[in-house]
Parts: sequence; C-alpha cells; structure tokens
Amino acid sequence: MQTAILIIQCKDSKGIVAAVSEFLYRNNGNIIEIDQHIDQEIEDFFMRAEWELDTFAIAKDEIIKVFAKEVGDRFQMKYTLSFNTPKPRMAIFVSKLSHCLFDILSRYYSGQFQVEIPLVISNHADLKPVVKAFGIPFYHFPINKENKREQEKMQIELLQENKVDFVVLARYMQILSGNFINHFPSRIINIHHSFLPAFVGAKPYHAAHKRGVKIIGATAHYVTEELDAGPIIEQDVARVRHHNTVEEMVQIGQDIEKVVLSKAIKYHLARKIQVVGNRTIIFN
Amino acid sequence: MQTAILIIQCKDSKGIVAAVSEFLYRNNGNIIEIDQHIDQEIEDFFMRAEWELDTFAIAKDEIIKVFAKEVGDRFQMKYTLSFNTPKPRMAIFVSKLSHCLFDILSRYYSGQFQVEIPLVISNHADLKPVVKAFGIPFYHFPINKENKREQEKMQIELLQENKVDFVVLARYMQILSGNFINHFPSRIINIHHSFLPAFVGAKPYHAAHKRGVKIIGATAHYVTEELDAGPIIEQDVARVRHHNTVEEMVQIGQDIEKVVLSKAIKYHLARKIQVVGNRTIIFN
Amino acid sequence: MQTAILIIQCKDSKGIVAAVSEFLYRNNGNIIEIDQHIDQEIEDFFMRAEWELDTFAIAKDEIIKVFAKEVGDRFQMKYTLSFNTPKPRMAIFVSKLSHCLFDILSRYYSGQFQVEIPLVISNHADLKPVVKAFGIPFYHFPINKENKREQEKMQIELLQENKVDFVVLARYMQILSGNFINHFPSRIINIHHSFLPAFVGAKPYHAAHKRGVKIIGATAHYVTEELDAGPIIEQDVARVRHHNTVEEMVQIGQDIEKVVLSKAIKYHLARKIQVVGNRTIIFN
Amino acid sequence: MQTAILIIQCKDSKGIVAAVSEFLYRNNGNIIEIDQHIDQEIEDFFMRAEWELDTFAIAKDEIIKVFAKEVGDRFQMKYTLSFNTPKPRMAIFVSKLSHCLFDILSRYYSGQFQVEIPLVISNHADLKPVVKAFGIPFYHFPINKENKREQEKMQIELLQENKVDFVVLARYMQILSGNFINHFPSRIINIHHSFLPAFVGAKPYHAAHKRGVKIIGATAHYVTEELDAGPIIEQDVARVRHHNTVEEMVQIGQDIEKVVLSKAIKYHLARKIQVVGNRTIIFN
Repeated sequence: MQTAILIIQCKDSKGIVAAVSEFLYRNNGNIIEIDQHIDQEIEDFFMRAEWELDTFAIAKDEIIKVFAKEVGDRFQMKYTLSFNTPKPRMAIFVSKLSHCLFDILSRYYSGQFQVEIPLVISNHADLKPVVKAFGIPFYHFPINKENKREQEKMQIELLQENKVDFVVLARYMQILSGNFINHFPSRIINIHHSFLPAFVGAKPYHAAHKRGVKIIGATAHYVTEELDAGPIIEQDVARVRHHNTVEEMVQIGQDIEKVVLSKAIKYHLARKIQVVGNRTIIFN
Repeated sequence: MQTAILIIQCKDSKGIVAAVSEFLYRNNGNIIEIDQHIDQEIEDFFMRAEWELDTFAIAKDEIIKVFAKEVGDRFQMKYTLSFNTPKPRMAIFVSKLSHCLFDILSRYYSGQFQVEIPLVISNHADLKPVVKAFGIPFYHFPINKENKREQEKMQIELLQENKVDFVVLARYMQILSGNFINHFPSRIINIHHSFLPAFVGAKPYHAAHKRGVKIIGATAHYVTEELDAGPIIEQDVARVRHHNTVEEMVQIGQDIEKVVLSKAIKYHLARKIQVVGNRTIIFN
Repeated sequence: MQTAILIIQCKDSKGIVAAVSEFLYRNNGNIIEIDQHIDQEIEDFFMRAEWELDTFAIAKDEIIKVFAKEVGDRFQMKYTLSFNTPKPRMAIFVSKLSHCLFDILSRYYSGQFQVEIPLVISNHADLKPVVKAFGIPFYHFPINKENKREQEKMQIELLQENKVDFVVLARYMQILSGNFINHFPSRIINIHHSFLPAFVGAKPYHAAHKRGVKIIGATAHYVTEELDAGPIIEQDVARVRHHNTVEEMVQIGQDIEKVVLSKAIKYHLARKIQVVGNRTIIFN
Repeated sequence: MQTAILIIQCKDSKGIVAAVSEFLYRNNGNIIEIDQHIDQEIEDFFMRAEWELDTFAIAKDEIIKVFAKEVGDRFQMKYTLSFNTPKPRMAIFVSKLSHCLFDILSRYYSGQFQVEIPLVISNHADLKPVVKAFGIPFYHFPINKENKREQEKMQIELLQENKVDFVVLARYMQILSGNFINHFPSRIINIHHSFLPAFVGAKPYHAAHKRGVKIIGATAHYVTEELDAGPIIEQDVARVRHHNTVEEMVQIGQDIEKVVLSKAIKYHLARKIQVVGNRTIIFN
C-alpha cells in the first residue's frame, strides 16, 4: 500500500485540523494515521497525517501545489510531504564495534526495516567481512588528522553518488566536520553511549563508573555541530550495581545502545520525527 | 478554565475527523487536545476532543443535541460528553493496608487530583484516624458472610446519597457482588497486586515467589463480575531477585501498586479512558 | 586466567562459610567471587565460589575428592565443580525467526560469549545462509508428526557426537519430547515470548493483545516436561499502548526476547545459575 | 530479633573471608546475611556481615575490642559495628512540597521503616498540620540571607538535643552550609529531582524539558559540600514524551522522587550502604 505523509508546522489557531482533514476528505484520502501536537512554548501547531495514495484524487506530484493553495498558504504553514515508497536509502558508518551494525543488519535481513542500504563506510577494515556477508558494499576510509578533510570530501561524494537519504553512525568513532553535517541536516543519526546530557564526549562508561551512578543509558540523536548536543530522538537505561566494572558496564550498555539506535532508525524511516529547535516530536 | 470533553465511537469511514473538527471550528471551539484511534480488530473509529467552553457558541446543555443533529447521527456515533467541572466525586474503599490510601490522600491534599472525596468506606476500623486527619468522613461496614448482602445494599445507598461518581478499591479485601458492580459500570477501579493476567486472585506475591518470577507487577483495572479480569487501565513492574522473601516482595510491590492506582485515577478523572470490549484506550 | 567454580547446597547451619573459605585459604586459593544465599523456604544454604586455579595447591582433578573429605561430607553437601576452560559447547535450535539467532551470533562474533558453537539445528532451511556466514555447520531436520520421534533421536545423537554441553532454543517452534529433555536436564534454555506465567503456549502476543495488557514481556527458562513451566532464569518487559497492533507487539517483543535470552546464556556460561526446585538462584 | 552488623574495609588479600567467618563461627554467631565486594580500582576488600546477637558468645560492648584483636588488626581493617536496635533517629527537613514527606510518614505509620522521627524541620510553616497529624514535633525556621547562619546553628543544636542520627532532606529547598554538612558526614540524604549528573542545581525539570530528553529521573545521594555531587545511593527514571509540559514532568517526576528517597532511607536504616570515595556500595 502506497501512502503519503504530510507533516505540518504553523502558528496555532482555530480551524487547522478542520481545514486539513476536510482537504483530505474532499479529495478522497483514506486517513491511516493522524496526530497533532501543540507546543506550549513556541505556540506552534504540529500535525502529521498519513493517508492512502491509491484512491486519492490528486496526483502524487500535484499534492504539494494543491495543498499550498487550498490550505497551507491560508495558515502560513511550513510542511514536508513524503511517500513511503521508494524506500529511503541509508548509509551506515562504523568503526570496530559490531553490536549496533549487527542489530541494524539483522533487522534489514528480516524485513523489519523498510530501507535500502547501498553502502557501509568505516575508518577501519575490521567489519568488512560482516558487511560483505550481507551483500552490501563496504568502503574503507582510514582517517588521520592530515587526511580527514580530504577523506570526508570523498565520503560525501560517495554518499551523493549513491543517492543516500540519511546516515547512521553506528558507534562511528570519528567526529564529523561541520561541513559534512551541513550536507545532511537532521539526517545523521548518532548513538551516544550515555544518558545525555550526562557524560558528553569520550569514554562515558568510564565517567559513569567514576561518578558511581546506579543507572546507565544510551541516547540516539540527530548530529549537529555541537558534540552530543543535537535533538534527542530516543533514550533508554539499564541498572548497574556497585560491583559492575567498566567492562561490564560496556556490555550492559551495548544492549541498550543497539535497541535505542534501531528505534530511532525506525522512527526516522516512518517519518515520525519532527525536529523543533533542539527537541523532537515523535508522532507515535 | 472550563472545558468540554467529547469521546466518540463509530464505524470507521472517511470524513469523521473533518466533520467533528469542522463542527468545533464552526462553533468557535478552541481545541485543547484532540486524539484519534482506529481499532483494527472491530474497525471502529474513536476520538477524544477537549475544548474550551467559555468561547463556545453552543450552550453547555445544548451541545449534545446540536452535535447529534449536525454530526453524530450522520455517522451513527456513540458518544459521551462531560465537563471538567464540577469535580467528580470519588469514594475510596479500604481494608487495613494504608499505602494506597495515603498515596491517594497525599495527592488530594497537594491538589494533584481534581476530585471531591465525600467519604471513605472500610470493612475494618483501623484506618479511621488516617481518614479523619484529612477531614474526610469514614464509614465502617464490618462484613461477614451473613451480613454481606445487607451491608452492600447500605453501602450503595450511602454512595448514592453522596452522589458518588466512581469508586476506588484501594486494596479493599472484599469481593464485590455483581449487583454492586452493576451500579457502577466502568466506574469501579481496583488495584490488583500482580501483573495480570498472571496470578489472579488471592496472595499473588506468594504465588509469584513460588513460581520464581524475576519481575513482579501491579495492575489497575475496572471491576467486572469476573474476578481480576476487567479492562486493564495501567500496569507497572519491579525487579525481584532470588533472595527476596515474600515479605520483601510485598514491600517492593506496594511501591508499584500505589503509583499504578494513582495513575489510573488520574486518567479516569481526566476522562482519558475509553473501554472497548475488555480493553481500554488511554488517550494520553 | 583459569578458574574453578564451586556451587554448594546443604542444610543451613553454623560454620559453613568458615569451613569453605578456610578450605580455599589453606590451599592458597585466590577468591575472585564468593556469594551465598539462604533459602528461607527449604532452609537450605547455597554458595558459589570462584577462584584462580594457577596458584591453587590442589590439582584440578583432585579438588572434588579433597573437598568432599575435608568439607563436603561434614555438612552433607551437594556440590558441582566446574572450570571456566575449556569453553562450553552450545547448540542452537532455530526455526524461521532470525532475531535471537543474530543476537547470539553477533555476541559470539565479538567475543562477548566464551562459548563454542559446534552446530545449529533447524526444522526449516531458511536460516542456513545466516549460519553458514558465521562458519558454523547447519543441520536441517524437517519435522512432522510421523518423523518427529525419529528426527529427535538423530538430533540427540548429533548433539552427543558434537559433545554439546547445553542447548539454546532461539525461538524454535517445536515442542521437545520428554525423552529429549531428559538428556539435557537444566541444560536446555528456551525463550518464551511472554511474561510467564502469563500467556503460556502458542501465540502469546495475540493473547496479550486480546487481554489488553499495557506491558508485554519475555522469559528465558530451563525447559522441563511441562510446557513453559520450567525454572525462570531471566525476564524483561516493554510498554505497549492501545494503538499497538499484534504485529507491532511482535516487533517490540522481539527486542526484549533477544536480550533476555542472551542474558540467560551469559549466566549459564558463567555458571551463575543454580536450580532449586522450580526456581533459580542467579549468583550475580 | 537483635542483630549486629559489621562492615569491613581493608586491602584485598587471601584469608579475609575465612578469618571473619571463622571468628563468627567460633563465637557462635548465627549469620543472617553476609556479602563481600572487591573494588577493582582501589583494590580494597569490603564485607558486610549481620548476625544474631542473642546466642553470640561475646558481649555487645566487647565485640569491637575482641574483633580488633583477633581479626581486624591482622588485616589492618577499618570497620564499623552497629546494632539493629535501638531504632535510628531520623530528622526530616522539608519546605513546601509534600509528596516525599507523605511517602516517608506513611511508611513510618505502617511500620515499614524501623526508625524514630523525633522532629521535622522546615523553612516554611505550610506542612505543619501534616506533621502534627502524625504526632511529630514540627519546628519552623524561616531562612533568609541574614539569619541563615544563626538558624543553622540552632538547627544543629536542636538535632543534637534530639540525638538525631541522620537527616533526610525531603525536597528541602535550602542549600546547607559546609559547617552543617560536616556535623553529619555521610548522614544527610538528599533527593535531587534529576538523573544526576545531568541537570545539577535549580529547576532540573525545566532544564530537562528544554534539552528535550525522553526520560527523566531522580537521585538520592549523601550530601557533600559540592552541590548535588555527593555519593549516589539510588536512582530511578520515568519516560516522558514530547507533549509533556514542564508541569506534567514535575508530576511524573514526583512519583520517582518519593520512591527513590524512601529506598535510600531503607538502605541507610538497614546499614546496607558503604561510602567509598564518592561512590556507594549497596549490600543488597
């Protein structure tokens, strides 16, 4: 079943729900999901509507134009329209740790993720056999201070050639440059191995152990220029006890990391995320 | 701020959201919250809308009639309309355990619950001083096999005299008769000290200990004639370990029970619960 | 580092900890972990001690004999002695679902599990490529009513030939016979996709959806002849909401299943589990 | 049943468990609980032993002396000996919020806490009726910049007169001076309404909302001079969603705060906490 997904943002006022739902009804749109949210702080109204395309009266590539004219302009809306097909194209960046990569690939294998994975990129060669076993091209870009800029440039070109829609950093141990990030605004998902905003930066499990916390966590977020400070998509936690060593925390944490990252990917694939300032709305 | 809350159920079809939201817009209703749900199994559409009454064009006691004529009849809807004022009137039933009672009364005291508590009923006198300290009338109905029917009859009369809207069984250790339950359909909330449907009936912590579970739970549900089998409103769990005795499980469990029960009361007070068959929709 | 692991059970009495720890001290055993538990119900004392073998004064194959004589007989103890090397040999049984299999194999790949996996057995051929990619032999035993007994006999022989220590049912959709189970007492780990004892048997997510629970779960347990009734090793849960379909519950649940199963395997590999009646002590 | 509780810290070496357990055995000590921990970082050994006093061969006030001579001195141990009776004396400090106070008092009322509460101190008069209803003396110390030092001095005197063993800050909205804290080292428990080390200081729910976290938390810790940086005793978390306002976060968080604080009090009362540097061992 082919669907259209419309996400709307505008100043809150009376009549928006009526106008949008009436537009869909008038054009024979069969609504699958509709969800609204009013942000009390900025007083903006948000809406996500998903409906079947087959019976819809407006042609796929006319929808935006007609919607703008009949509804959007009237409320000075910002909106994005997307479709559930073709499947989005996702690039995965990894380093040496395999747990997040395996988790993503196993969901890809079983059909849980409606996604194409045209390539995996790594700054190390270690995980090449894993990626190859899934029939996915693997590109090795060794990175050091000298070549970083040049390598990133080539990575961006490679992503563009492969028409990549979004990038997943599956425990990729390099900090991306502002230039790279600007090529994919709100389209790079990172998993950080702490309960942000606690323990930003390197070695969060060591820091958590040192602080003596009783719960550790993981955070999936969109990457912005400020390290580990982008809009949070999903978080989860696990209990630790005084006898857990840093190494045990790492193992306990990895179980959280992989599930949190995959949930974030799932929301992104389903276009259920709207970034508002530095926060996210998850239409779920 | 006075609000109206409309909960709708009807066969799913195109145009319902448009019709309802257009009705509210046309009559100058400022929507505070609107939420929809389609039950895939029975193919029914559900909607909860809450809007401000002050500016609404239709008089409070005319709304149902006008809505029926303009929207409800067209879609053969079932619906309930309620208002956030006056506050609902809640009766609490207790026996000897105080943790749920204290939790409810402390929220009542701090203003977290928008509710009136005209009375507390118990089959024991133990908690009378607690209830009195909050300035609430306490009624003692000792119950045995012989007097149960008669006592229940008097309880029902007392509840009716006090215009009680709903009843909360805060670890009340008596099974209510079908007759009692029928006086308050979907309006008696019970807390059961297990993760239903596991461990129905008496002494669930003993049963959980015997079965060797690693997690225990609590369940708030509407009371129906079948014991511990009514529509579930809320559940939560806590970890236990092999060394926890039944007594420790009881203590661990009580922390879950009281929070789960109070959440269920909160949803009920806000009219966020719709019972569908033996399940609940929580519009939250 | 090579270690010995001693697990003890006996009637509780004074002097047991002193006797065991004095035995280890006298023979120059460097204790890594020591843990005790008194079961209040059966009034038995349990102890798990792990110590370094390198410096231990008693030869590996003499330990049991000496311990019996110097400590065990005096307290009429039951005990098992094991060593962390060589690695235990684990067989995995699967059907068509891949999530648990991938989770186990990815931990095996990354070295998180100290285990040998000599073979994977399945009643379907679907997952053969996955298993092959990890360089592990895959055996396909199609099963129907007529051949079940014969196929099980061949499976047992194959497990014995491969010196398999324990079996993991990673969503294996066949019920093992009593004969099979008796070959591996407390050595077959199953993952059941519900929060036991709720929803025993087939299609627990369907049953959970029908009952309208707000939390679903998964349970890893040792297999006994009574279906889904064996000693529970580990459980975990996840929240669901009224709008989650059975299919969504399945996906949410799979994330719990795989982590719970892998935790149970981890405890089993580390000899941290002691079965007591139908319950488990987890020395963790 | 009267018990003795011994908590030991010393450099890790062979024979400690044997020496301590042999000491208890020799003197006819019936062990109720015994637990050990080796801190890998500082390479110290920790042990907590609890045993029945009735049958113990050494008189209550001789135990420390005999233990030092026979065991402690040999391993250069640091240790504390305490007894489960008489009940510890706890002072509660509050401001205006009642949820933690009610939670503590309801456990006190039901006998869950083995504690004496000789007094409650507050910088506001609001909660006086609540405290009075439980028959506990209430002292009002209004605090401003000018009188803070003087008021604290009087509070300390009052605590000393009442032979208070430890202090619980149940959402007390004043920062204690270093002088006050030094009078009660590792004996002041605070509840902070965030998942430390995230959101130190004032208005953590506002900060959490602004950062867009998906999970909020609460932390019970011992108070040290650095604000919200003392040894963590217990933490817990709750999920929030994009639609939760700060006010809703406050309500959700309060349910976590009160349970976390009461758990910390429970551990403290049972002498299950050992502070090591800025971390805690919880013998549980």
